[in-house]
Amino acid sequence: MRVLGVDCGTERTGFGVIESDGRDHRLIACGVIQTSPRNSMPARLAAIARGLREVIQTHGPQAAAIEEVFTSANVKSALKLAQVRGVAMLTVEEAQLPLGEYSPLAIKTSVVGYGRAEKSQVQLMVRSILRLEQTISSADAADALAVAICHATRS
Amino acid sequence: MRVLGVDCGTERTGFGVIESDGRDHRLIACGVIQTSPRNSMPARLAAIARGLREVIQTHGPQAAAIEEVFTSANVKSALKLAQVRGVAMLTVEEAQLPLGEYSPLAIKTSVVGYGRAEKSQVQLMVRSILRLEQTISSADAADALAVAICHATRS
Repeated sequence: MRVLGVDCGTERTGFGVIESDGRDHRLIACGVIQTSPRNSMPARLAAIARGLREVIQTHGPQAAAIEEVFTSANVKSALKLAQVRGVAMLTVEEAQLPLGEYSPLAIKTSVVGYGRAEKSQVQLMVRSILRLEQTISSADAADALAVAICHATRS
Repeated sequence: MRVLGVDCGTERTGFGVIESDGRDHRLIACGVIQTSPRNSMPARLAAIARGLREVIQTHGPQAAAIEEVFTSANVKSALKLAQVRGVAMLTVEEAQLPLGEYSPLAIKTSVVGYGRAEKSQVQLMVRSILRLEQTISSADAADALAVAICHATRS
């Protein structure tokens, strides 16, 4: 199964596509959709939608996964994040992909085996699980791959 | 100028289209995009996007307006609302409409002349401003028209 993981962010939205049989996972593609703070929020949301549609079209995932909406300490940035999340969910739905939603705890547990793992641990474990020779340069792309791995393992 | 106002909601998203010269406002269309709680959130977001695109295509507004994101007492529903808001912003941007954002205070002040007005007062004043013979049956549609009137008055 080919799975797309998305790590939403207003400035940087990570994506990761893996091929998996549920136990063995292989990297297909990963990266970051970056938006400029100089652009309006609608323009940034449109750039994220465009980027995700392109990833879906290029790599043809059969399913997608995303982090559950959560209440961070900073409500204002949580609300901005939720806007991006709405756009990501719409893009996935319009591509007719089933969407899995996972808590940060579930994602970290499935990748690191420990729900309170640091970002750097996630990055290291994603590299090891996918047997990559190099570290994934972007933490956002690594987080997106972690969501994809979590979905592939659980479904 | 033809203005689309949108009042976001997960279950009910109100819309209102007016024709205005900035002082005189005329109703073109209004209504509600209703989604079923039985559907998944991605499916509901897709229904809202579809509904808004249809309204834009049918009535050809030149601008759109929406309520600013705000932190309600209930953070969980504010986050859900922000997801819908992201989808509405995307739809407006992809239709290449400029988007105005207004605080609830600004909207109520411009329609009722008083920032802490009740929902029923907004509904009454929208009816009076648009010189409608009947009350607008839906409070969500009236709120959407209020946003549109606010935008038309200020721009």
